[in-house]
Amino acid sequence: MPTIFFYGPRLDKDKSRDMIQSFTETASRLTGIERSAFVVYLRESGPENVGVGGELLEDRLKSRDRK
Amino acid sequence: MPTIFFYGPRLDKDKSRDMIQSFTETASRLTGIERSAFVVYLRESGPENVGVGGELLEDRLKSRDRK
Amino acid sequence: MPTIFFYGPRLDKDKSRDMIQSFTETASRLTGIERSAFVVYLRESGPENVGVGGELLEDRLKSRDRK
Amino acid sequence: MPTIFFYGPRLDKDKSRDMIQSFTETASRLTGIERSAFVVYLRESGPENVGVGGELLEDRLKSRDRK
Amino acid sequence: MPTIFFYGPRLDKDKSRDMIQSFTETASRLTGIERSAFVVYLRESGPENVGVGGELLEDRLKSRDRK
Amino acid sequence: MPTIFFYGPRLDKDKSRDMIQSFTETASRLTGIERSAFVVYLRESGPENVGVGGELLEDRLKSRDRK
Repeated sequence: MPTIFFYGPRLDKDKSRDMIQSFTETASRLTGIERSAFVVYLRESGPENVGVGGELLEDRLKSRDRK
Repeated sequence: MPTIFFYGPRLDKDKSRDMIQSFTETASRLTGIERSAFVVYLRESGPENVGVGGELLEDRLKSRDRK
Repeated sequence: MPTIFFYGPRLDKDKSRDMIQSFTETASRLTGIERSAFVVYLRESGPENVGVGGELLEDRLKSRDRK
Repeated sequence: MPTIFFYGPRLDKDKSRDMIQSFTETASRLTGIERSAFVVYLRESGPENVGVGGELLEDRLKSRDRK
Repeated sequence: MPTIFFYGPRLDKDKSRDMIQSFTETASRLTGIERSAFVVYLRESGPENVGVGGELLEDRLKSRDRK
Repeated sequence: MPTIFFYGPRLDKDKSRDMIQSFTETASRLTGIERSAFVVYLRESGPENVGVGGELLEDRLKSRDRK
């Protein structure tokens, strides 16, 4: 029954598989709950929809690129 | 003021209506709070972004189809 | 795999059972996914931690009681 | 470390910036935690995926427009 | 209908009021949606249940205090 | 900036540390984002507040114990 949400950048298929497998193994080992009970949601969040330190992430990444 | 989030497959318009109406009625009846106070969010989650039992749901559905 | 979150007042045991059963039945019927795949989280949210219309819910309920 | 999620309509870039800046300033001032520690997620939620008072928001907006 | 979640430290009553009022005003101004439609959830998250940079926040705060 | 939420049973301090460290390392490796940018929330969810397969988890665990 445990559930994990990841909010972050889009991952390609192989990285999605890796993250789901790794999170599930870790969480199953630490809780003692069987792997089959775990659900992981990968919730993509683009830089135009995230703020960090009061700034749009998109703006922050651009200003970093310019330097 | 209560809020309900549904994370699952995309629903067509009629099923979306049905789910919203049914969740709201149930929750209003059980809490005693008027229906107008309820908000329901349908958050679509495709099989390429969900893991079940440590596996990408997309992979799991494909391997089931092959059998 | 679908997951439902309910943010609202504390429910007693019988109402919790009823909400979980009813949400799961509705969602299973509308998605065609078997009941066993559904997880429902009841996340209690007291009036001292919720704001409605810009006001603390606790304040709003008190001022309503006074009338 | 605090995190804020906004579920609502899509905002244009300037309004996204304004919301992120304003939420972060308010939350930093009230918690005493430095601005750099805050993350804000703007999670768009269209009227075809939200229910209000038991009705699909899309339907509600249409019926209001007709009046 | 928009909904805001704040995950962070416990706030006293006056700060809770201030945060709810300020978030709601900002969000109402930027979306053009009336204040009465907004719900804000303050979800307390103690340092024993948060990780920052791979470390339990509680550990990080202690080690900072020692310095 | 990425954020991870874990909804599941209460963990003791050492397991909380382990989960936070492991999730952060995995996610940092797969996204290429530095560890310091990650926040993990451990959101405890007791068996009296979770439903699995339409049943209160508390009831399900009890009936399993009786067998």
